[in-house]
Amino acid sequence: MLIIADNLHVVRSDIARAVADMNPEPIRRLVHSCLRAGAQAIDVNSGPLPRKARERMRLLVDAVRSVHRGSLLLDTTNADAMAAGLAACRGKAIVNGFSLEPDRIERFLPLAKSFGADIIGYLLYPGGRVPVDADDLMQAAVSLFEICIAAGLPPERLIIDPVIAPLSWQDGLRHNQSVLTLLRHLPDLLGAPVRTIAGLSNLASGPMPLERKIALEQAYLPMLAAAGLDMLLVNVWHKPTIETANLSDGLLGSGVFAWGDVAPGPAPHPEGAMAMSIEHEKER
Amino acid sequence: MLIIADNLHVVRSDIARAVADMNPEPIRRLVHSCLRAGAQAIDVNSGPLPRKARERMRLLVDAVRSVHRGSLLLDTTNADAMAAGLAACRGKAIVNGFSLEPDRIERFLPLAKSFGADIIGYLLYPGGRVPVDADDLMQAAVSLFEICIAAGLPPERLIIDPVIAPLSWQDGLRHNQSVLTLLRHLPDLLGAPVRTIAGLSNLASGPMPLERKIALEQAYLPMLAAAGLDMLLVNVWHKPTIETANLSDGLLGSGVFAWGDVAPGPAPHPEGAMAMSIEHEKER
Repeated sequence: MLIIADNLHVVRSDIARAVADMNPEPIRRLVHSCLRAGAQAIDVNSGPLPRKARERMRLLVDAVRSVHRGSLLLDTTNADAMAAGLAACRGKAIVNGFSLEPDRIERFLPLAKSFGADIIGYLLYPGGRVPVDADDLMQAAVSLFEICIAAGLPPERLIIDPVIAPLSWQDGLRHNQSVLTLLRHLPDLLGAPVRTIAGLSNLASGPMPLERKIALEQAYLPMLAAAGLDMLLVNVWHKPTIETANLSDGLLGSGVFAWGDVAPGPAPHPEGAMAMSIEHEKER
Repeated sequence: MLIIADNLHVVRSDIARAVADMNPEPIRRLVHSCLRAGAQAIDVNSGPLPRKARERMRLLVDAVRSVHRGSLLLDTTNADAMAAGLAACRGKAIVNGFSLEPDRIERFLPLAKSFGADIIGYLLYPGGRVPVDADDLMQAAVSLFEICIAAGLPPERLIIDPVIAPLSWQDGLRHNQSVLTLLRHLPDLLGAPVRTIAGLSNLASGPMPLERKIALEQAYLPMLAAAGLDMLLVNVWHKPTIETANLSDGLLGSGVFAWGDVAPGPAPHPEGAMAMSIEHEKER
């Protein structure tokens, strides 16, 4: 499972200021911190960039690229910003993303194709309508897949995002169970090497203690992994969540994992990070 | 998922002494502690009881029963002790257990039948040979099932244990992946309401820091739950593991879980302490 940081987001005041000031330093620092925390790829969430879209997206991409050579997800609804980001992004780029909304298909699919980028397709109907159940998710996946094929995009360039719902939504719980069903059946359904991604931070969004958020992420993540998820978009500063991601990969035989290394246990974590300390079986 | 404590074991010196002294008090205290930690059933692991088998098993069962009215698993290879335990056990009893070993079939299956108890069947061939892969696990499950049916035991009284392997075993990792496959396919395979159980403490047995053990349990447990596991045999003093079990049930819609109660969450925890407590969820 590829671990992608969702931490680089212009809703953060330090990043908003860095973008406004055209100052790459805070962006680099944040990406460094994500890489140290276990990120293998970075989602660049620039927001819609209503002003100076190209210039600001280039700043973001250049700043990330100066410290990270791996995959880079470009996360904006602004097609001009997307084009500028793709042009600036030396190395692997992923358009994040499109859905069954005709406007998104028309603006983003040709961009991914012409720049040779991968593209993330959300299982969302026009108007952002969420599929009602597992069958509906599968129908949406088939529709997205067919649109890509018709547009001449090879299946291995499509990454499907079934969209994890916040548990606070009325049907969030049931939707996320359907997401597991979709992931398990997708390879047979499409018969093609389409990958999958999911944004875990959605799960426990809203006001909730951090410990609770992380515990929920830790419980749902191994289910996603066992269902076959390829890429995980996540807050990499949730240290126990990242540890669970790595252990899940190890248990599923899909990660770089040496069981012989089990005994020494985890390395000490940097100050300020979320510590996972267990009370020592105090009942005994 | 029913949570069963595996903590009551005569390898513990306090329990060994209590049994030798015919003193129920330490047994009651231990069971109380398990119930407080979230146990819904208790596995009474008496060991083989080479001396005073009946008397000592009765002591154990009476002591547990005096503080716990729920299910009670009788865990011994001694058929005399098993019979004494079943006779003493007012309320739900589960024979733990038998396998494809002819001797175990002959001695334990008739006991379960005549006492109206459920029985756990391990997917182990004669001589304790472990099935080599998922297909072999399924074959063993079919064989166990057919033996029960032939003996006149209703399918709903059989509980299949695919036997989680220690990760330190050469093929432990691959075996535990096959266990997930078996659990997912068992309902279709048998077409009968056979339940499943797994002993999670096996996974990370051997010398390993406690934090690592628990992190591994927390990663594998949601996979078991999503694969359809009915009953979890576990060290209930591993608090984060039990929390993960409850959250997994909640996420799968199989537990008593109020998402509306998510927001208030646990109180702030003292620095350094593990605070992911949801002890009150189940009580509501």
